[in-house]
Amino acid sequence: MRILIANVNTTEAITEAIAEQARSVAAPGTEIVGLTPWFGAESVEGNFESYLAAIAVMDRVLAYDQPYDAVIQAGYGEHGREGLQELLNVPVVDITDAAASTAMYLGHAYSVVTTLDRTVPLIEDRLKLSGLYERCASVRASGLAVLELEADPQRAVEAIVEQAERAVRDDKAEVICLGCGGMAGLDEQIRQRTGVPVVDGVSAAVTMAESLVRLGLSTSKVRTYATPRAKKVIGWPMRFGR
Amino acid sequence: MRILIANVNTTEAITEAIAEQARSVAAPGTEIVGLTPWFGAESVEGNFESYLAAIAVMDRVLAYDQPYDAVIQAGYGEHGREGLQELLNVPVVDITDAAASTAMYLGHAYSVVTTLDRTVPLIEDRLKLSGLYERCASVRASGLAVLELEADPQRAVEAIVEQAERAVRDDKAEVICLGCGGMAGLDEQIRQRTGVPVVDGVSAAVTMAESLVRLGLSTSKVRTYATPRAKKVIGWPMRFGR
Amino acid sequence: MRILIANVNTTEAITEAIAEQARSVAAPGTEIVGLTPWFGAESVEGNFESYLAAIAVMDRVLAYDQPYDAVIQAGYGEHGREGLQELLNVPVVDITDAAASTAMYLGHAYSVVTTLDRTVPLIEDRLKLSGLYERCASVRASGLAVLELEADPQRAVEAIVEQAERAVRDDKAEVICLGCGGMAGLDEQIRQRTGVPVVDGVSAAVTMAESLVRLGLSTSKVRTYATPRAKKVIGWPMRFGR
Amino acid sequence: MRILIANVNTTEAITEAIAEQARSVAAPGTEIVGLTPWFGAESVEGNFESYLAAIAVMDRVLAYDQPYDAVIQAGYGEHGREGLQELLNVPVVDITDAAASTAMYLGHAYSVVTTLDRTVPLIEDRLKLSGLYERCASVRASGLAVLELEADPQRAVEAIVEQAERAVRDDKAEVICLGCGGMAGLDEQIRQRTGVPVVDGVSAAVTMAESLVRLGLSTSKVRTYATPRAKKVIGWPMRFGR
Amino acid sequence: MRILIANVNTTEAITEAIAEQARSVAAPGTEIVGLTPWFGAESVEGNFESYLAAIAVMDRVLAYDQPYDAVIQAGYGEHGREGLQELLNVPVVDITDAAASTAMYLGHAYSVVTTLDRTVPLIEDRLKLSGLYERCASVRASGLAVLELEADPQRAVEAIVEQAERAVRDDKAEVICLGCGGMAGLDEQIRQRTGVPVVDGVSAAVTMAESLVRLGLSTSKVRTYATPRAKKVIGWPMRFGR
Amino acid sequence: MRILIANVNTTEAITEAIAEQARSVAAPGTEIVGLTPWFGAESVEGNFESYLAAIAVMDRVLAYDQPYDAVIQAGYGEHGREGLQELLNVPVVDITDAAASTAMYLGHAYSVVTTLDRTVPLIEDRLKLSGLYERCASVRASGLAVLELEADPQRAVEAIVEQAERAVRDDKAEVICLGCGGMAGLDEQIRQRTGVPVVDGVSAAVTMAESLVRLGLSTSKVRTYATPRAKKVIGWPMRFGR
Repeated sequence: MRILIANVNTTEAITEAIAEQARSVAAPGTEIVGLTPWFGAESVEGNFESYLAAIAVMDRVLAYDQPYDAVIQAGYGEHGREGLQELLNVPVVDITDAAASTAMYLGHAYSVVTTLDRTVPLIEDRLKLSGLYERCASVRASGLAVLELEADPQRAVEAIVEQAERAVRDDKAEVICLGCGGMAGLDEQIRQRTGVPVVDGVSAAVTMAESLVRLGLSTSKVRTYATPRAKKVIGWPMRFGR
Repeated sequence: MRILIANVNTTEAITEAIAEQARSVAAPGTEIVGLTPWFGAESVEGNFESYLAAIAVMDRVLAYDQPYDAVIQAGYGEHGREGLQELLNVPVVDITDAAASTAMYLGHAYSVVTTLDRTVPLIEDRLKLSGLYERCASVRASGLAVLELEADPQRAVEAIVEQAERAVRDDKAEVICLGCGGMAGLDEQIRQRTGVPVVDGVSAAVTMAESLVRLGLSTSKVRTYATPRAKKVIGWPMRFGR
Repeated sequence: MRILIANVNTTEAITEAIAEQARSVAAPGTEIVGLTPWFGAESVEGNFESYLAAIAVMDRVLAYDQPYDAVIQAGYGEHGREGLQELLNVPVVDITDAAASTAMYLGHAYSVVTTLDRTVPLIEDRLKLSGLYERCASVRASGLAVLELEADPQRAVEAIVEQAERAVRDDKAEVICLGCGGMAGLDEQIRQRTGVPVVDGVSAAVTMAESLVRLGLSTSKVRTYATPRAKKVIGWPMRFGR
Repeated sequence: MRILIANVNTTEAITEAIAEQARSVAAPGTEIVGLTPWFGAESVEGNFESYLAAIAVMDRVLAYDQPYDAVIQAGYGEHGREGLQELLNVPVVDITDAAASTAMYLGHAYSVVTTLDRTVPLIEDRLKLSGLYERCASVRASGLAVLELEADPQRAVEAIVEQAERAVRDDKAEVICLGCGGMAGLDEQIRQRTGVPVVDGVSAAVTMAESLVRLGLSTSKVRTYATPRAKKVIGWPMRFGR
Repeated sequence: MRILIANVNTTEAITEAIAEQARSVAAPGTEIVGLTPWFGAESVEGNFESYLAAIAVMDRVLAYDQPYDAVIQAGYGEHGREGLQELLNVPVVDITDAAASTAMYLGHAYSVVTTLDRTVPLIEDRLKLSGLYERCASVRASGLAVLELEADPQRAVEAIVEQAERAVRDDKAEVICLGCGGMAGLDEQIRQRTGVPVVDGVSAAVTMAESLVRLGLSTSKVRTYATPRAKKVIGWPMRFGR
Repeated sequence: MRILIANVNTTEAITEAIAEQARSVAAPGTEIVGLTPWFGAESVEGNFESYLAAIAVMDRVLAYDQPYDAVIQAGYGEHGREGLQELLNVPVVDITDAAASTAMYLGHAYSVVTTLDRTVPLIEDRLKLSGLYERCASVRASGLAVLELEADPQRAVEAIVEQAERAVRDDKAEVICLGCGGMAGLDEQIRQRTGVPVVDGVSAAVTMAESLVRLGLSTSKVRTYATPRAKKVIGWPMRFGR
């Protein structure tokens, strides 16, 4: 099967890192295709950038002209997943949801460690909308921006470990979710340092997407995610930047 | 003062109707400027269209080159308000929030009557995110699409009255919110028919925006709605369609 | 229009301060009438005093024999608003609700800074009943009694600023509500000191009441706030102290 | 021990019925003293009347000049209990709370059947404030006013049974609480008719008050229910109507 | 009347301590019978041990061949109460519920102080299922195992007092519940040390059970707690260890 | 890898049906081993039977003496999963959780259709404890007992379809979960009849268990699910019935 994994920002290096992480956990026979949006911010760290990414991801996925079986949106706490669900007939998995719902199998409560403090409310709100917030002990910021994670992985590990340890000690988290697509690949180090299971959203999303495809399940079209009605839409598809 | 009121869809006639309603309640000295997005759907009735509108509204508001004191987003249950709050320093009022928070002064519980059933979950989710859902008795669909409301106002009144009556009788609503920017102007008829206060979101948003300006209050910039960080953003501003 | 603003305690100086604050934000043409209850506590800081104030305010408002367009109850977290809503046909605005619902337009979460610790649960409970608690980050006590606020405004500012700063830093509040009618007029100083929007409930209530009157909206009479049934009531009106 | 049981309305016949019911379940050695407020409504069916009753009950209880061990407030969903808790050092039991917390021992969910529809939101709100709403399946109105219950008990039984049956069938209630002090004594009939346990709040409150006294437990005075601070209170005690 | 009080662990000394505490508060004429399970852990401090205890308690109670009027399950936060409710026609009272629902009469919020940290989530979950969590300020662990409590009561008092004081100061608890059947008898000392009411679950359960019996109330059999259907059950009753 | 799938009741035919369903979705290389408890009820339809099954499943799994990689508990809404998590180091997946968390990827709200009405509250409570209830539209009973499902699959399909259709129409479910291990294999028929995705918990649990194993994730041992402390446990392991 073929799974598209869409980065939410326009930094190609992150797309590559995400796709590489995805491939490392994919089942034999699963092809991973990384997609980078054609427009939007180089890193997504707030509502404006996230809304722009939502549209850019939808635009980029629709422009992909080969068959595929599922789509993963690889942004943590970002807008847009519901739009993809309307536009597509294949299953859509957001890494925020995948990490949280996987974590809930592993412990009584989980925490998310993310990048900047300003993204914390977005993640909390997305988890609430997804119905996965009840067992969330906390969402904590490492204080590092997305591109800083990329630039200095070891510093990232230190900052994430510090917040993960506080989450376990103070917030009573029993599992840690890595709250940024760009953290893919750091899970093993952080697990060793904290002693609790660490869930990488990209990895969790890949196995979830594979599972949905294998089970023949896809988005319900009876109400919220019904295909958009036929109507006049100006400037769509955008193909902006192409 | 000058208040921009942004339609979420690209149908000019709705922008005009909204602006007219806004002017009818504005204080002396308040200038209302209606804005129509340069791209997006002719009517917004779902997540994809709403996400596209979110970006189109931000783009259109940023392109407005005269001074203004507040911005109203005139879509019911739509995405995007948080993005405007980040991008602007003036207060931003969403009509969904304005209708609900006004209704809560008038009765113990309120219901929203909107257009199509598929938009009900969007409205519920936006109210939850805004923290205004607790006293919401129900969100009910009239079954009429946005453009049908425009085309046949009397049929719209009948359909809305029917749902409003059920909301009062079955869901124990004590106030009705008109759940669509395009319903502006129907409030008086529906109030007479149902006997309960009817809140039009556009009207409520105008007086709320005026109040915030008068009180010298605007969006907090310390966390969630801080100005976006300086970074490379491809394809922005869009000015798409111009 | 004429708006009655009822102090909840019997200290005339507070009534005057509240009315002065109200006048400073009122629109041209709005007359503000301050009312002091004829009986009750010199300051209201707990349930017994608040229940007594509830009745004293209803009694005092009913005794006002001139026409008026709206009533503001200027006590933070106090009982009684629902009773006024039953007895009157004009809109009733409580400053607790007005501050909270205004704050929700300005940030993702708000905190209230009030007087004594013992009043914190009352405020929390009133916000819960009003359906405005979801986005409340915290209610914090400055430790100063109502009359101490009156006696030493500068000390009050210091105590409030300290708690406001903690609310922003520790509780992640993005907006501060001044949780006492007697704090009216301190908002500007506290805003400068904390860097976040500060909402004074009296001011917010005045513009809200004006808005409701302008929009022709008043309390729904179909259920919770229906006019009391005709029946024998001993000792009412009280006019106690007259 | 001596337990005061305060009627919330000024109808002596109801006080007598309540006291009689209380005596029928009291332990040997428990003396029940029924108190009727000196002012207020002949029946309490809404917020204004309930707020007035709150003060009238406090006033009446404080005027009782013999020793006593506990106080029961015998109004369903009424204001005031917190005020009594502040003013007194003996335990205070509200029949709304007593019925609900007793019902929760008996089934997975309970419903309340009360008098008029307009009192339903008051009861719901009081249960929410008391933290006893989570397992409440519904609050249903029989449509009979308080004094109608008194006048025609058999009609009352029929109306209550009808709503109780609906609560069991449609709302999945497993226990019924009689939601009015004036329903005391009807429990056995209704239990036979519906087949589920029926909790009379007065009876439950008596055994609860006895239990608290026996266990040497009374209201915590550290925060919410601390004794009112010494201050000038005009017109208190009221002794109105004496 | 006769009340069975079932210890959840197999340590006879704890059964005796519990029964002694129960007898000290029981009404004249109430006979307390302590039961020790025939199999299971010497102390219950986690889910496996608690599930085993659930079955062992049901088995032990069913093996009791004399008449009785009520059953108390004397484990804090343990599984099994619903099973007893299905199997028996007499009322069943869990000490977790009894402590919490009693505490709610005494203050605005309560905390539980229990044994080991690992039992905290169990207690929280049981309170949530019972619908008694809303007013729970916190569940805190003293760090002492059940058998350590038994072995060194004075050390237990110190550890519990420390957590109780934090609960009052930091979590705003106004009442403390002793979160372990083995803490029975420590309440008076802890009350003196902390100045807030202290509720011992065993004592509260005894008066509650007596009250239910006196009121003629027992478990509803219409749905959740209906008697198990007749069917083939292998290995039941267990009488294991006999 | 090898996955143990434990039936909760003692009917071998159900174990076989469950194992067969599991094998039909398992990845190549996954070995499914069905386990039937050695004691307990022939069908589990209530709390007593479920608590007994909890222990019987733990006992049966511990008695399995070959290596395995994950355990599935194949009972819908049953007790016991937390006990297995404590006792084992491999991941444990409950079909209730697996169905719900899978359904949440497919629609805005899901409903569960189960067997008898008496099991509905158990399922609701388990979903609440698992933090997966927020997006649950309803749990509905088909009215068929577990063994009736086995005996007459076509009648089962009819009864389930009827409730599924009501869930979609009245409760606004967009996905249906089959709420009984014994319904495994009916999903395709029901999907065709209702037009919405149908999630079989056994199938979802198999792919979830495989995913966890593949990702190297297992139960967190830092708190709630820590290995039981070494202590004296009478009568364990049970091996009852062997």
